[in-house]
Amino acid sequence: MDLYGAIEGGGTKFVCAIGDSSGKIIEKIKISTQAPEITSQEIISFFKQHPIKKLGIGCFGPLDLNKNSATYGSITSTPKPGWSGFNILRTLKQALNVEVILDTDVNGAALGEYYWGLSKQIKNLVYITIGTGIGAGILVNGETVKGLLHPEAGHMFISQRKDDNFEGTCPFHGNLCFEGLANGPAIKNRWHVEHFSSLEKDHPAVDLEAHYIAMALVNIICTCSPELIIIGGGVTDQKALLPKVREKTVKLLNGYVRHDRIEKEIDKYIILPTLNENSGIMGALTLAII
Amino acid sequence: MDLYGAIEGGGTKFVCAIGDSSGKIIEKIKISTQAPEITSQEIISFFKQHPIKKLGIGCFGPLDLNKNSATYGSITSTPKPGWSGFNILRTLKQALNVEVILDTDVNGAALGEYYWGLSKQIKNLVYITIGTGIGAGILVNGETVKGLLHPEAGHMFISQRKDDNFEGTCPFHGNLCFEGLANGPAIKNRWHVEHFSSLEKDHPAVDLEAHYIAMALVNIICTCSPELIIIGGGVTDQKALLPKVREKTVKLLNGYVRHDRIEKEIDKYIILPTLNENSGIMGALTLAII
Repeated sequence: MDLYGAIEGGGTKFVCAIGDSSGKIIEKIKISTQAPEITSQEIISFFKQHPIKKLGIGCFGPLDLNKNSATYGSITSTPKPGWSGFNILRTLKQALNVEVILDTDVNGAALGEYYWGLSKQIKNLVYITIGTGIGAGILVNGETVKGLLHPEAGHMFISQRKDDNFEGTCPFHGNLCFEGLANGPAIKNRWHVEHFSSLEKDHPAVDLEAHYIAMALVNIICTCSPELIIIGGGVTDQKALLPKVREKTVKLLNGYVRHDRIEKEIDKYIILPTLNENSGIMGALTLAII
Repeated sequence: MDLYGAIEGGGTKFVCAIGDSSGKIIEKIKISTQAPEITSQEIISFFKQHPIKKLGIGCFGPLDLNKNSATYGSITSTPKPGWSGFNILRTLKQALNVEVILDTDVNGAALGEYYWGLSKQIKNLVYITIGTGIGAGILVNGETVKGLLHPEAGHMFISQRKDDNFEGTCPFHGNLCFEGLANGPAIKNRWHVEHFSSLEKDHPAVDLEAHYIAMALVNIICTCSPELIIIGGGVTDQKALLPKVREKTVKLLNGYVRHDRIEKEIDKYIILPTLNENSGIMGALTLAII
Protein backbone atom coordinates (compact mmCIF):
# COMPACT_ATOMS: atom_id res chain seq x y z
CA MET A 1 0.00 0.00 0.00
CA ASP A 2 1.27 3.48 -0.83
CA LEU A 3 2.51 5.55 2.09
CA TYR A 4 1.91 9.26 2.50
CA GLY A 5 3.67 11.89 4.59
CA ALA A 6 1.95 14.39 6.85
CA ILE A 7 3.30 17.43 8.67
CA GLU A 8 1.50 19.63 11.15
CA GLY A 9 3.74 22.64 11.54
CA GLY A 10 3.29 24.80 14.61
CA GLY A 11 5.15 27.55 16.40
CA THR A 12 6.43 25.24 19.15
CA LYS A 13 6.52 21.85 17.46
CA PHE A 14 6.29 20.07 14.12
CA VAL A 15 4.45 16.75 14.09
CA CYS A 16 5.55 14.47 11.25
CA ALA A 17 3.74 11.28 10.38
CA ILE A 18 3.60 8.48 7.84
CA GLY A 19 0.21 7.02 7.03
CA ASP A 20 -1.74 5.14 4.43
CA SER A 21 -4.90 5.96 2.52
CA SER A 22 -7.04 4.19 5.12
CA GLY A 23 -5.96 6.80 7.65
CA LYS A 24 -3.69 4.46 9.59
CA ILE A 25 -0.67 6.24 11.10
CA ILE A 26 2.40 4.00 10.94
CA GLU A 27 5.02 6.30 12.39
CA LYS A 28 4.87 9.65 14.12
CA ILE A 29 7.44 12.00 15.65
CA LYS A 30 7.49 15.46 17.20
CA ILE A 31 10.24 17.91 16.41
CA SER A 32 10.62 21.13 18.38
CA THR A 33 10.42 24.25 16.25
CA GLN A 34 13.85 25.83 16.03
CA ALA A 35 15.41 27.80 13.18
CA PRO A 36 13.89 26.67 9.88
CA GLU A 37 17.19 25.24 8.58
CA ILE A 38 17.52 23.00 11.64
CA THR A 39 13.90 21.94 11.85
CA SER A 40 13.64 21.23 8.14
CA GLN A 41 16.76 19.05 8.26
CA GLU A 42 15.19 16.95 11.00
CA ILE A 43 11.99 16.66 8.96
CA ILE A 44 13.95 15.61 5.88
CA SER A 45 15.87 12.96 7.83
CA PHE A 46 12.63 11.50 9.11
CA PHE A 47 10.99 11.24 5.71
CA LYS A 48 14.16 9.92 4.06
CA GLN A 49 13.90 6.91 6.34
CA HIS A 50 10.31 6.32 5.23
CA PRO A 51 9.75 6.67 1.48
CA ILE A 52 6.44 8.37 0.73
CA LYS A 53 4.40 8.96 -2.37
CA LYS A 54 3.21 12.46 -1.52
CA LEU A 55 3.53 14.91 1.36
CA GLY A 56 0.78 17.06 2.90
CA ILE A 57 1.64 19.99 5.16
CA GLY A 58 -0.67 22.00 7.38
CA CYS A 59 1.47 24.86 8.61
CA PHE A 60 1.23 27.98 10.72
CA GLY A 61 1.06 31.10 8.58
CA PRO A 62 0.48 33.43 7.01
CA LEU A 63 1.37 31.39 3.94
CA ASP A 64 1.70 32.18 0.27
CA LEU A 65 -0.64 29.62 -1.31
CA ASN A 66 -0.92 31.28 -4.71
CA LYS A 67 0.54 28.89 -7.26
CA ASN A 68 1.31 31.75 -9.63
CA SER A 69 3.34 33.64 -7.08
CA ALA A 70 7.15 33.69 -7.10
CA THR A 71 7.10 32.98 -3.38
CA TYR A 72 4.50 30.21 -3.54
CA GLY A 73 4.92 27.82 -0.65
CA SER A 74 6.60 30.19 1.75
CA ILE A 75 5.69 31.46 5.17
CA THR A 76 5.21 35.18 4.81
CA SER A 77 5.11 37.83 7.57
CA THR A 78 5.32 35.73 10.73
CA PRO A 79 6.87 37.25 13.86
CA LYS A 80 8.48 33.82 14.52
CA PRO A 81 12.23 34.54 14.27
CA GLY A 82 13.86 33.19 11.09
CA TRP A 83 10.69 31.78 9.56
CA SER A 84 9.51 34.84 7.67
CA GLY A 85 10.13 34.17 3.98
CA PHE A 86 11.13 30.55 4.52
CA ASN A 87 9.84 28.41 1.65
CA ILE A 88 8.78 25.24 3.39
CA LEU A 89 7.14 23.73 0.33
CA ARG A 90 10.10 24.20 -1.99
CA THR A 91 12.65 23.09 0.61
CA LEU A 92 10.89 19.80 1.30
CA LYS A 93 9.94 19.15 -2.31
CA GLN A 94 13.53 19.51 -3.45
CA ALA A 95 15.00 17.46 -0.63
CA LEU A 96 12.47 14.62 -0.81
CA ASN A 97 11.65 14.75 -4.50
CA VAL A 98 7.92 14.20 -3.98
CA GLU A 99 4.82 16.25 -4.63
CA VAL A 100 4.05 18.50 -1.68
CA ILE A 101 0.64 20.00 -0.88
CA LEU A 102 0.60 22.94 1.50
CA ASP A 103 -2.29 24.56 3.34
CA THR A 104 -2.74 26.37 6.64
CA ASP A 105 -2.74 24.36 9.86
CA VAL A 106 -6.39 25.23 10.46
CA ASN A 107 -7.54 24.54 6.90
CA GLY A 108 -5.76 21.21 7.34
CA ALA A 109 -7.60 20.55 10.60
CA ALA A 110 -10.94 21.40 8.95
CA LEU A 111 -10.12 18.97 6.15
CA GLY A 112 -9.08 16.29 8.65
CA GLU A 113 -12.37 16.61 10.52
CA TYR A 114 -14.27 16.43 7.24
CA TYR A 115 -12.43 13.42 5.94
CA TRP A 116 -11.94 11.33 9.08
CA GLY A 117 -14.30 12.73 11.67
CA LEU A 118 -17.99 12.33 12.36
CA SER A 119 -18.65 15.02 9.80
CA LYS A 120 -17.71 12.98 6.74
CA GLN A 121 -20.88 13.95 4.88
CA ILE A 122 -20.62 17.61 5.77
CA LYS A 123 -18.88 19.53 3.02
CA ASN A 124 -19.22 22.97 4.58
CA LEU A 125 -17.60 23.28 7.95
CA VAL A 126 -15.41 25.56 9.99
CA TYR A 127 -12.65 24.58 12.41
CA ILE A 128 -11.71 27.34 14.83
CA THR A 129 -8.83 27.17 17.22
CA ILE A 130 -8.62 29.60 20.11
CA GLY A 131 -5.42 29.67 22.09
CA THR A 132 -2.43 32.00 21.98
CA GLY A 133 -3.65 32.86 18.50
CA ILE A 134 -7.02 32.48 16.89
CA GLY A 135 -7.45 30.94 13.48
CA ALA A 136 -10.09 29.24 11.41
CA GLY A 137 -9.99 26.67 8.67
CA ILE A 138 -12.94 26.87 6.34
CA LEU A 139 -14.28 24.19 4.05
CA VAL A 140 -16.76 25.19 1.32
CA ASN A 141 -18.17 22.48 -0.93
CA GLY A 142 -15.50 20.11 0.39
CA GLU A 143 -12.57 22.38 -0.47
CA THR A 144 -10.53 24.61 1.81
CA VAL A 145 -10.87 28.34 1.28
CA LYS A 146 -7.79 29.77 -0.43
CA GLY A 147 -8.40 32.99 -2.25
CA LEU A 148 -6.37 36.15 -2.10
CA LEU A 149 -4.60 34.49 0.82
CA HIS A 150 -6.45 32.22 3.24
CA PRO A 151 -8.86 32.81 6.11
CA GLU A 152 -7.53 34.95 8.95
CA ALA A 153 -10.62 34.76 11.09
CA GLY A 154 -8.84 35.84 14.26
CA HIS A 155 -8.61 39.30 12.79
CA MET A 156 -12.24 39.86 11.91
CA PHE A 157 -13.78 42.78 13.72
CA ILE A 158 -16.35 42.20 16.41
CA SER A 159 -17.75 44.65 18.90
CA GLN A 160 -16.27 45.14 22.36
CA ARG A 161 -18.88 44.64 25.06
CA LYS A 162 -19.77 47.82 26.92
CA ASP A 163 -18.66 46.44 30.31
CA ASP A 164 -15.20 45.53 28.96
CA ASN A 165 -12.54 48.20 28.66
CA PHE A 166 -9.56 45.94 28.02
CA GLU A 167 -7.16 47.50 25.50
CA GLY A 168 -6.77 44.31 23.47
CA THR A 169 -3.75 42.15 22.65
CA CYS A 170 -3.62 42.42 18.87
CA PRO A 171 -0.57 44.41 17.70
CA PHE A 172 -2.46 45.26 14.50
CA HIS A 173 -6.02 45.88 15.70
CA GLY A 174 -5.88 46.33 19.48
CA ASN A 175 -9.34 45.57 20.86
CA LEU A 176 -11.10 45.81 17.50
CA CYS A 177 -10.57 42.23 16.39
CA PHE A 178 -11.61 38.83 17.72
CA GLU A 179 -8.05 37.78 18.53
CA GLY A 180 -7.29 41.04 20.32
CA LEU A 181 -10.34 40.58 22.53
CA ALA A 182 -10.46 36.86 23.03
CA ASN A 183 -7.16 35.03 22.64
CA GLY A 184 -5.40 33.33 25.54
CA PRO A 185 -3.22 36.33 26.44
CA ALA A 186 -6.33 38.59 26.42
CA ILE A 187 -7.97 36.38 29.05
CA LYS A 188 -4.79 36.24 31.09
CA ASN A 189 -4.11 39.96 31.01
CA ARG A 190 -7.68 41.10 31.46
CA TRP A 191 -8.52 38.89 34.42
CA HIS A 192 -5.04 38.22 35.81
CA VAL A 193 -5.65 34.51 35.80
CA GLU A 194 -3.08 31.83 35.02
CA HIS A 195 -5.46 29.02 34.13
CA PHE A 196 -8.71 29.84 32.38
CA SER A 197 -9.69 26.17 32.72
CA SER A 198 -9.65 26.33 36.51
CA LEU A 199 -12.13 29.21 36.80
CA GLU A 200 -15.61 28.51 38.16
CA LYS A 201 -18.24 28.22 35.47
CA ASP A 202 -20.00 31.42 36.60
CA HIS A 203 -16.79 33.51 36.54
CA PRO A 204 -17.38 36.60 34.38
CA ALA A 205 -14.31 35.70 32.31
CA VAL A 206 -16.12 32.63 30.99
CA ASP A 207 -19.21 34.64 30.15
CA LEU A 208 -17.25 37.35 28.30
CA GLU A 209 -15.11 34.85 26.39
CA ALA A 210 -18.22 32.98 25.31
CA HIS A 211 -19.80 36.25 24.21
CA TYR A 212 -16.88 37.17 21.95
CA ILE A 213 -16.66 33.68 20.48
CA ALA A 214 -20.42 33.74 19.82
CA MET A 215 -20.11 37.08 18.00
CA ALA A 216 -17.38 35.65 15.81
CA LEU A 217 -19.50 32.57 15.13
CA VAL A 218 -22.42 34.76 14.04
CA ASN A 219 -20.08 36.42 11.55
CA ILE A 220 -18.85 33.10 10.26
CA ILE A 221 -22.41 31.79 9.96
CA CYS A 222 -23.45 34.95 8.08
CA THR A 223 -20.59 34.66 5.60
CA CYS A 224 -19.59 31.00 5.11
CA SER A 225 -22.85 29.36 6.24
CA PRO A 226 -21.16 26.26 7.71
CA GLU A 227 -23.19 23.12 8.45
CA LEU A 228 -20.89 22.38 11.38
CA ILE A 229 -18.64 24.46 13.63
CA ILE A 230 -15.77 22.80 15.45
CA ILE A 231 -13.96 24.64 18.22
CA GLY A 232 -10.54 23.56 19.38
CA GLY A 233 -7.59 25.14 21.13
CA GLY A 234 -6.58 25.82 24.71
CA VAL A 235 -9.66 27.76 25.81
CA THR A 236 -11.85 24.68 25.40
CA ASP A 237 -10.15 23.19 28.47
CA GLN A 238 -12.62 25.40 30.34
CA LYS A 239 -15.56 23.00 30.29
CA ALA A 240 -18.22 25.65 30.92
CA LEU A 241 -17.25 27.55 27.78
CA LEU A 242 -18.85 25.58 24.96
CA PRO A 243 -22.38 25.39 26.44
CA LYS A 244 -22.28 29.16 26.93
CA VAL A 245 -21.01 29.74 23.40
CA ARG A 246 -23.91 27.71 22.01
CA GLU A 247 -26.46 29.58 24.11
CA LYS A 248 -25.07 32.98 23.20
CA THR A 249 -24.79 32.22 19.50
CA VAL A 250 -28.49 31.35 19.35
CA LYS A 251 -29.34 34.44 21.38
CA LEU A 252 -27.27 36.79 19.23
CA LEU A 253 -28.68 35.40 15.96
CA ASN A 254 -32.04 36.19 17.56
CA GLY A 255 -34.12 34.04 15.23
CA TYR A 256 -32.72 35.49 12.03
CA VAL A 257 -30.93 32.46 10.61
CA ARG A 258 -33.64 29.84 10.93
CA HIS A 259 -32.57 26.21 10.81
CA ASP A 260 -33.10 23.17 13.01
CA ARG A 261 -29.34 22.86 13.49
CA ILE A 262 -29.46 26.20 15.28
CA GLU A 263 -32.93 26.17 16.80
CA LYS A 264 -33.06 22.55 17.96
CA GLU A 265 -29.65 20.92 17.59
CA ILE A 266 -27.16 23.55 18.62
CA ASP A 267 -25.31 20.91 20.70
CA LYS A 268 -24.59 19.07 17.47
CA TYR A 269 -23.89 22.24 15.49
CA ILE A 270 -21.11 23.71 17.65
CA ILE A 271 -18.85 20.91 18.84
CA LEU A 272 -15.37 19.99 20.01
CA PRO A 273 -13.00 18.33 17.52
CA THR A 274 -14.06 14.75 16.90
CA LEU A 275 -10.44 13.77 16.28
CA ASN A 276 -9.29 15.35 19.55
CA GLU A 277 -5.63 16.35 19.13
CA ASN A 278 -5.32 14.71 15.72
CA SER A 279 -7.39 16.94 13.44
CA GLY A 280 -4.26 18.72 12.22
CA ILE A 281 -2.06 15.74 11.43
CA MET A 282 -4.97 13.80 9.91
CA GLY A 283 -5.75 16.85 7.81
CA ALA A 284 -2.16 17.00 6.58
CA LEU A 285 -2.44 13.32 5.64
CA THR A 286 -5.67 14.12 3.80
CA LEU A 287 -3.90 16.82 1.81
CA ALA A 288 -1.46 14.15 0.60
CA ILE A 289 -4.11 11.54 -0.16
CA ILE A 290 -6.79 13.49 -2.03
CA MET B 1 -28.59 26.82 -30.43
CA ASP B 2 -30.16 25.85 -27.11
CA LEU B 3 -31.97 28.58 -25.24
CA TYR B 4 -31.90 29.04 -21.51
CA GLY B 5 -34.19 30.89 -19.13
CA ALA B 6 -33.06 33.32 -16.46
CA ILE B 7 -34.98 34.97 -13.64
CA GLU B 8 -33.77 37.63 -11.25
CA GLY B 9 -36.41 37.74 -8.54
CA GLY B 10 -36.60 40.84 -6.37
CA GLY B 11 -38.98 42.35 -3.89
CA THR B 12 -40.29 44.94 -6.35
CA LYS B 13 -39.77 43.27 -9.73
CA PHE B 14 -38.91 40.01 -11.42
CA VAL B 15 -36.69 40.20 -14.50
CA CYS B 16 -37.17 37.28 -16.87
CA ALA B 17 -34.87 36.64 -19.81
CA ILE B 18 -34.08 34.15 -22.53
CA GLY B 19 -30.50 33.76 -23.57
CA ASP B 20 -28.01 31.41 -25.15
CA SER B 21 -24.77 29.90 -23.92
CA SER B 22 -22.77 32.74 -25.47
CA GLY B 23 -24.46 35.11 -23.05
CA LYS B 24 -26.64 36.77 -25.65
CA ILE B 25 -30.00 37.88 -24.26
CA ILE B 26 -32.73 37.39 -26.88
CA GLU B 27 -35.77 38.48 -24.94
CA LYS B 28 -36.25 40.22 -21.61
CA ILE B 29 -39.26 41.42 -19.60
CA LYS B 30 -39.90 42.94 -16.21
CA ILE B 31 -42.83 41.80 -14.07
CA SER B 32 -43.81 43.69 -10.95
CA THR B 33 -43.75 41.60 -7.81
CA GLN B 34 -47.30 40.96 -6.66
CA ALA B 35 -48.73 37.94 -4.85
CA PRO B 36 -46.69 34.85 -5.75
CA GLU B 37 -49.61 33.16 -7.56
CA ILE B 38 -50.04 36.16 -9.85
CA THR B 39 -46.36 36.82 -10.47
CA SER B 40 -45.58 33.17 -11.10
CA GLN B 41 -48.41 32.93 -13.66
CA GLU B 42 -46.91 35.84 -15.58
CA ILE B 43 -43.49 34.21 -15.44
CA ILE B 44 -44.90 30.92 -16.69
CA SER B 45 -46.72 32.63 -19.59
CA PHE B 46 -43.50 34.30 -20.66
CA PHE B 47 -41.44 31.13 -20.68
CA LYS B 48 -44.20 29.11 -22.34
CA GLN B 49 -43.85 31.41 -25.32
CA HIS B 50 -40.11 30.74 -25.47
CA PRO B 51 -39.17 27.09 -25.02
CA ILE B 52 -36.02 26.74 -22.90
CA LYS B 53 -33.71 23.90 -22.04
CA LYS B 54 -33.05 24.89 -18.43
CA LEU B 55 -34.02 27.70 -16.07
CA GLY B 56 -31.77 29.55 -13.62
CA ILE B 57 -33.24 31.69 -10.85
CA GLY B 58 -31.47 34.15 -8.60
CA CYS B 59 -34.08 35.11 -6.03
CA PHE B 60 -34.48 37.22 -2.92
CA GLY B 61 -34.44 35.10 0.23
CA PRO B 62 -33.98 33.60 2.63
CA LEU B 63 -34.21 30.45 0.52
CA ASP B 64 -34.19 26.77 1.33
CA LEU B 65 -31.39 25.50 -0.92
CA ASN B 66 -30.91 22.15 0.79
CA LYS B 67 -31.77 19.45 -1.74
CA ASN B 68 -32.58 16.99 1.04
CA SER B 69 -35.12 19.28 2.64
CA ALA B 70 -38.88 18.79 2.22
CA THR B 71 -39.20 22.50 1.49
CA TYR B 72 -36.26 22.66 -0.96
CA GLY B 73 -36.74 25.48 -3.42
CA SER B 74 -38.97 27.66 -1.29
CA ILE B 75 -38.63 31.17 0.03
CA THR B 76 -38.56 30.84 3.82
CA SER B 77 -39.14 33.57 6.41
CA THR B 78 -39.48 36.70 4.26
CA PRO B 79 -41.58 39.60 5.55
CA LYS B 80 -42.82 40.07 1.93
CA PRO B 81 -46.59 39.36 2.19
CA GLY B 82 -47.63 36.02 0.69
CA TRP B 83 -44.15 34.90 -0.30
CA SER B 84 -43.12 33.16 2.93
CA GLY B 85 -43.22 29.42 2.21
CA PHE B 86 -43.81 29.85 -1.53
CA ASN B 87 -41.93 27.17 -3.43
CA ILE B 88 -40.71 29.04 -6.48
CA LEU B 89 -38.52 26.21 -7.75
CA ARG B 90 -41.22 23.54 -7.62
CA THR B 91 -43.91 25.83 -9.05
CA LEU B 92 -41.87 26.72 -12.12
CA LYS B 93 -40.39 23.26 -12.60
CA GLN B 94 -43.85 21.69 -12.67
CA ALA B 95 -45.39 24.32 -14.92
CA LEU B 96 -42.53 24.45 -17.43
CA ASN B 97 -41.29 20.89 -17.17
CA VAL B 98 -37.60 21.86 -17.24
CA GLU B 99 -34.74 21.60 -14.84
CA VAL B 100 -34.61 24.62 -12.52
CA ILE B 101 -31.53 25.80 -10.65
CA LEU B 102 -32.12 28.17 -7.74
CA ASP B 103 -29.69 30.33 -5.80
CA THR B 104 -29.87 33.64 -3.98
CA ASP B 105 -30.01 36.86 -6.00
CA VAL B 106 -26.60 37.89 -4.72
CA ASN B 107 -24.96 34.50 -5.23
CA GLY B 108 -26.35 34.75 -8.75
CA ALA B 109 -24.85 38.18 -9.22
CA ALA B 110 -21.47 36.96 -7.96
CA LEU B 111 -21.64 34.10 -10.42
CA GLY B 112 -22.64 36.46 -13.25
CA GLU B 113 -19.67 38.70 -12.55
CA TYR B 114 -17.37 35.68 -12.46
CA TYR B 115 -18.67 34.18 -15.66
CA TRP B 116 -19.26 37.24 -17.83
CA GLY B 117 -17.42 40.07 -16.16
CA LEU B 118 -13.82 41.21 -16.13
CA SER B 119 -13.20 38.77 -13.36
CA LYS B 120 -13.51 35.61 -15.46
CA GLN B 121 -10.30 34.14 -14.10
CA ILE B 122 -11.09 34.97 -10.52
CA LYS B 123 -12.71 32.03 -8.79
CA ASN B 124 -12.95 33.62 -5.35
CA LEU B 125 -15.01 36.77 -5.26
CA VAL B 126 -17.70 38.53 -3.30
CA TYR B 127 -20.59 40.58 -4.64
CA ILE B 128 -22.14 42.88 -2.03
CA THR B 129 -25.25 44.90 -2.58
CA ILE B 130 -26.08 47.75 -0.23
CA GLY B 131 -29.50 49.33 -0.58
CA THR B 132 -32.70 48.85 1.39
CA GLY B 133 -31.20 45.54 2.42
CA ILE B 134 -27.62 44.35 2.47
CA GLY B 135 -26.60 41.01 1.03
CA ALA B 136 -23.55 39.27 -0.30
CA GLY B 137 -23.02 36.55 -2.84
CA ILE B 138 -19.85 34.59 -2.26
CA LEU B 139 -17.92 32.49 -4.72
CA VAL B 140 -15.28 30.08 -3.41
CA ASN B 141 -13.29 28.01 -5.91
CA GLY B 142 -15.78 29.02 -8.60
CA GLU B 143 -18.85 27.80 -6.68
CA THR B 144 -21.39 29.82 -4.75
CA VAL B 145 -21.46 29.31 -0.98
CA LYS B 146 -24.46 27.25 0.07
CA GLY B 147 -24.02 25.49 3.37
CA LEU B 148 -26.43 25.39 6.27
CA LEU B 149 -28.33 28.09 4.37
CA HIS B 150 -26.52 30.71 2.32
CA PRO B 151 -24.56 33.85 3.15
CA GLU B 152 -26.49 36.49 5.10
CA ALA B 153 -23.66 38.99 5.25
CA GLY B 154 -25.92 41.92 6.07
CA HIS B 155 -26.39 40.43 9.51
CA MET B 156 -22.78 40.00 10.48
CA PHE B 157 -21.83 41.97 13.57
CA ILE B 158 -19.55 44.93 13.26
CA SER B 159 -18.77 47.57 15.83
CA GLN B 160 -20.71 50.83 16.09
CA ARG B 161 -18.39 53.82 15.89
CA LYS B 162 -18.12 55.77 19.14
CA ASP B 163 -19.45 58.99 17.60
CA ASP B 164 -22.59 57.26 16.30
CA ASN B 165 -25.51 56.63 18.62
CA PHE B 166 -28.09 55.63 16.02
CA GLU B 167 -30.35 52.86 17.31
CA GLY B 168 -30.08 50.80 14.12
CA THR B 169 -32.70 49.62 11.64
CA CYS B 170 -32.43 45.84 11.92
CA PRO B 171 -35.52 44.33 13.55
CA PHE B 172 -33.40 41.38 14.66
CA HIS B 173 -30.10 42.98 15.69
CA GLY B 174 -30.73 46.73 16.08
CA ASN B 175 -27.40 48.49 15.71
CA LEU B 176 -25.30 45.38 16.22
CA CYS B 177 -25.24 44.23 12.61
CA PHE B 178 -23.97 45.68 9.33
CA GLU B 179 -27.44 46.08 7.85
CA GLY B 180 -28.80 47.76 10.98
CA LEU B 181 -26.00 50.31 10.87
CA ALA B 182 -25.50 50.84 7.17
CA ASN B 183 -28.49 50.06 4.95
CA GLY B 184 -30.36 52.73 3.02
CA PRO B 185 -32.97 53.37 5.75
CA ALA B 186 -30.19 53.70 8.36
CA ILE B 187 -28.60 56.50 6.33
CA LYS B 188 -31.98 58.17 5.78
CA ASN B 189 -33.08 57.97 9.41
CA ARG B 190 -29.76 58.83 10.97
CA TRP B 191 -29.01 61.88 8.84
CA HIS B 192 -32.53 62.86 7.75
CA VAL B 193 -31.47 62.94 4.12
CA GLU B 194 -33.58 61.89 1.18
CA HIS B 195 -30.81 61.30 -1.34
CA PHE B 196 -27.49 59.94 -0.12
CA SER B 197 -26.13 60.40 -3.64
CA SER B 198 -26.63 64.16 -3.52
CA LEU B 199 -24.57 64.74 -0.36
CA GLU B 200 -21.23 66.51 -0.65
CA LYS B 201 -18.26 64.16 -0.60
CA ASP B 202 -17.06 65.46 2.77
CA HIS B 203 -20.46 65.02 4.44
CA PRO B 204 -20.01 62.94 7.62
CA ALA B 205 -22.68 60.52 6.38
CA VAL B 206 -20.36 59.44 3.57
CA ASP B 207 -17.47 58.94 5.95
CA LEU B 208 -19.50 56.89 8.42
CA GLU B 209 -21.09 54.74 5.71
CA ALA B 210 -17.66 54.04 4.23
CA HIS B 211 -16.37 53.14 7.69
CA TYR B 212 -19.08 50.54 8.27
CA ILE B 213 -18.70 49.06 4.81
CA ALA B 214 -14.93 48.85 5.32
CA MET B 215 -15.42 47.01 8.63
CA ALA B 216 -17.67 44.50 6.90
CA LEU B 217 -15.12 44.09 4.10
CA VAL B 218 -12.39 43.35 6.63
CA ASN B 219 -14.59 40.59 8.03
CA ILE B 220 -15.25 39.18 4.62
CA ILE B 221 -11.54 39.32 3.74
CA CYS B 222 -10.67 37.57 7.02
CA THR B 223 -13.16 34.76 6.41
CA CYS B 224 -13.65 34.16 2.67
CA SER B 225 -10.38 35.68 1.41
CA PRO B 226 -11.84 36.95 -1.88
CA GLU B 227 -9.55 37.93 -4.74
CA LEU B 228 -12.07 40.57 -5.80
CA ILE B 229 -14.81 42.52 -4.04
CA ILE B 230 -17.67 44.00 -6.06
CA ILE B 231 -20.00 46.52 -4.48
CA GLY B 232 -23.40 47.26 -6.00
CA GLY B 233 -26.69 48.65 -4.79
CA GLY B 234 -28.19 52.08 -4.27
CA VAL B 235 -25.51 53.53 -1.99
CA THR B 236 -22.94 53.40 -4.77
CA ASP B 237 -24.80 56.25 -6.49
CA GLN B 238 -22.86 58.38 -4.03
CA LYS B 239 -19.65 58.70 -6.04
CA ALA B 240 -17.45 59.62 -3.10
CA LEU B 241 -18.25 56.40 -1.29
CA LEU B 242 -16.11 53.79 -3.03
CA PRO B 243 -12.79 55.69 -2.81
CA LYS B 244 -13.39 56.15 0.91
CA VAL B 245 -14.31 52.49 1.37
CA ARG B 246 -11.03 51.47 -0.27
CA GLU B 247 -8.98 53.86 1.86
CA LYS B 248 -10.66 52.77 5.09
CA THR B 249 -10.40 49.06 4.32
CA VAL B 250 -6.63 49.36 3.92
CA LYS B 251 -6.41 51.47 7.07
CA LEU B 252 -8.48 49.09 9.18
CA LEU B 253 -6.54 46.03 8.01
CA ASN B 254 -3.51 48.00 9.17
CA GLY B 255 -0.93 45.95 7.32
CA TYR B 256 -2.09 42.59 8.63
CA VAL B 257 -3.31 41.00 5.41
CA ARG B 258 -0.38 41.64 3.13
CA HIS B 259 -0.97 41.39 -0.58
CA ASP B 260 -0.34 43.66 -3.56
CA ARG B 261 -4.07 43.68 -4.33
CA ILE B 262 -4.58 45.45 -1.01
CA GLU B 263 -1.33 47.38 -0.64
CA LYS B 264 -0.91 48.56 -4.23
CA GLU B 265 -4.02 47.78 -6.27
CA ILE B 266 -6.93 48.51 -3.97
CA ASP B 267 -8.67 50.35 -6.84
CA LYS B 268 -8.76 47.06 -8.72
CA TYR B 269 -9.60 45.01 -5.63
CA ILE B 270 -12.77 46.81 -4.53
CA ILE B 271 -14.81 47.73 -7.59
CA LEU B 272 -18.27 48.47 -8.95
CA PRO B 273 -20.11 45.73 -10.86
CA THR B 274 -18.54 45.25 -14.28
CA LEU B 275 -21.92 44.21 -15.67
CA ASN B 276 -23.64 47.30 -14.26
CA GLU B 277 -27.32 46.45 -13.71
CA ASN B 278 -27.00 43.04 -15.34
CA SER B 279 -24.96 41.00 -12.86
CA GLY B 280 -28.11 39.40 -11.48
CA ILE B 281 -29.82 38.37 -14.69
CA MET B 282 -26.55 37.22 -16.25
CA GLY B 283 -25.89 35.22 -13.08
CA ALA B 284 -29.30 33.57 -13.37
CA LEU B 285 -28.46 32.68 -16.96
CA THR B 286 -25.16 31.23 -15.77
CA LEU B 287 -27.00 29.04 -13.27
CA ALA B 288 -28.92 27.55 -16.20
CA ILE B 289 -25.89 27.15 -18.45
CA ILE B 290 -23.27 25.59 -16.18
